[in-house]
Amino acid sequence: MVRAATAEDTPVIAGMLHEFNLEFADPSPGVAVIEPRVRDFLEREIKFFRLAVDGEDVVGFAQISFHASIWSDGPLGFLDELYVIPDRRGSGFGRALMASFFDLAQERGASGLELTTGEDDVAARRLYESLGFVNQIEGAENSRSLFYELSFE
Amino acid sequence: MVRAATAEDTPVIAGMLHEFNLEFADPSPGVAVIEPRVRDFLEREIKFFRLAVDGEDVVGFAQISFHASIWSDGPLGFLDELYVIPDRRGSGFGRALMASFFDLAQERGASGLELTTGEDDVAARRLYESLGFVNQIEGAENSRSLFYELSFE
Repeated sequence: MVRAATAEDTPVIAGMLHEFNLEFADPSPGVAVIEPRVRDFLEREIKFFRLAVDGEDVVGFAQISFHASIWSDGPLGFLDELYVIPDRRGSGFGRALMASFFDLAQERGASGLELTTGEDDVAARRLYESLGFVNQIEGAENSRSLFYELSFE
Repeated sequence: MVRAATAEDTPVIAGMLHEFNLEFADPSPGVAVIEPRVRDFLEREIKFFRLAVDGEDVVGFAQISFHASIWSDGPLGFLDELYVIPDRRGSGFGRALMASFFDLAQERGASGLELTTGEDDVAARRLYESLGFVNQIEGAENSRSLFYELSFE
């Protein structure tokens, strides 16, 4: 149901990344720009890609990176992107991709996992919380952890 | 007021990292474990450290990392840690450290900046928002971006 991506999968991954951003009204530089980047990151293991598959069909993917941590010997695993194509949602593909994220993180000796999601994406939050993710500044009571960004582009 | 850290600064940085976590009731492996990690990350440019100084005194620091992005040629700059010692807060050191974060990001061709903070850390949020940081899932209206984590330790 989930497998590691190979260089042959980069066009389909780039296509899903592009569709992902269109769906959420985010800017996308387009498939022709994304695809060589996916290929480069995959080959150099800067990013890891896991594919949800149904027979021959690729129906979703997870993009994962690992960052060094000052607090632990192992790195932290970060879920950059998680996507299941619209008409295949609610069938367990997202959960299967998350399981592969946990597997990869253990393989690489990660000390923990991180991700960001939208407050109103209730289905995603339910999935992450069911797996043990918490939206709380460590050690502080009742303070939610917020993600901020600023774009120069 | 702010300068780049050198190898000689690693004990004071490790000390502040440790104090930082004690203040917020987070676990810390202790200065003896953190210091060689700071030194290694600084030497290999895995993390960047900027120090707020008042004369000879180091009164705060920022720890910054850069992560490859699938969406842009340049990396994203991430504010791992921002700390000013308690009795020096409210004097502009945090803002000066943020300015050095922007400078470093521009120097390295970053396409954007990211950070996480606690919902009830009103002073920090006011600072970040005054600099243009937004706590919103891109493209979606009225949806705040939440940061989730899970620790294996």
